[in-house]
Amino acid sequence: MTIIVFGNSTSPYTRIVYYVLKELGLSYEMIQPSSYEEIKTPEYLATKHPFGRLPYLDDDGFHIYESRAIARYLINKYQGTKTSTVLIPSDVQKAALIEQFISIETSYYNQPLSKLITQLISMKRQGKEPDLKIVDEAREELDKVLDVYEKLLEGKDYLAGEFSLADILHIPLTFYAFRAGEGDLWNKRPNVSRWWKNITERESWKDIVTKK
Amino acid sequence: MTIIVFGNSTSPYTRIVYYVLKELGLSYEMIQPSSYEEIKTPEYLATKHPFGRLPYLDDDGFHIYESRAIARYLINKYQGTKTSTVLIPSDVQKAALIEQFISIETSYYNQPLSKLITQLISMKRQGKEPDLKIVDEAREELDKVLDVYEKLLEGKDYLAGEFSLADILHIPLTFYAFRAGEGDLWNKRPNVSRWWKNITERESWKDIVTKK
Repeated sequence: MTIIVFGNSTSPYTRIVYYVLKELGLSYEMIQPSSYEEIKTPEYLATKHPFGRLPYLDDDGFHIYESRAIARYLINKYQGTKTSTVLIPSDVQKAALIEQFISIETSYYNQPLSKLITQLISMKRQGKEPDLKIVDEAREELDKVLDVYEKLLEGKDYLAGEFSLADILHIPLTFYAFRAGEGDLWNKRPNVSRWWKNITERESWKDIVTKK
Repeated sequence: MTIIVFGNSTSPYTRIVYYVLKELGLSYEMIQPSSYEEIKTPEYLATKHPFGRLPYLDDDGFHIYESRAIARYLINKYQGTKTSTVLIPSDVQKAALIEQFISIETSYYNQPLSKLITQLISMKRQGKEPDLKIVDEAREELDKVLDVYEKLLEGKDYLAGEFSLADILHIPLTFYAFRAGEGDLWNKRPNVSRWWKNITERESWKDIVTKK
């Protein structure tokens, strides 16, 4: 059995896949693209990822792309075989509460955070000035969303009580927000701050960010 | 067993839940909010949906919100008990390909479509003029995404071959786009057009849009 992850070791979406692999105790090989252009070639689009993105995974010949789909595939196939970590439980109601948080991330958390990061990181990389009006709007929106998270995280270590895929899927953009100097939005809320610490202080994650 | 859906019968997100319920052959009661204000009250936010949205589901006392989470919960619990429709198969590789399309919808399809609908429907409702520059950008972006869909749908009736949850999750925003007069973006592509017809001509969907 050989699992190959084709991705970028500093990319937040690739890191979702690494995080899941490590929690499930699976070994894998990493392959990095030789250049940004490689993932936009007709061959890559036709055979690897039709939208020209990273990562994709090859599991003994089975090809799958999109980090969320890869994560679910790995959980379905390997959860419980190497470690006792449960990222999606078999109990229907417990799983439903995790799916609720996965959807909350997509519906409310992701949007203002993407806006903020586009301005503070992507624009900068392109040598452009961030639009401060958009930055302020995104911060304000995110403040409201995190107020709800603060309530939902009351008395909990992780979103659904136990660590789960829902926590891991919050990693990519939040990590960027901290790098852009916006960490106080999380740190100033005791429950949110405890949660973020819990996700990022797990051995799997520390391993990913320190070793690259 | 009583399943109650609290939602709005014309809301696209509530309709995702109805579609899943009908495909699984489950009977349910519908309750509509008395007013828009009802879902913004402190009581609703504290006990029904912390972000003040629709729909939520009550299954014999088990409370769950977010249409995607509700859909997955219903499938996990009831798939195969009343009808033979399979929305997420148990085969790990087949399920992975469905998850791939669910993620494609979130990552590439949803964003330009949301932009288009915000301009063409939401702005109009608020009595404002749509920003034609944003409309054009969104159309252009969507054109590129649908070009990829056209390729991915070659020789297929549904996204992953067989009908699945991935198809259902494309319903809400696309349905609005057709209502806003943008159907030609789908209709001009033979594979995409066939796919859209297949999703919307199923008995479950016809039932939802004709009976309300």
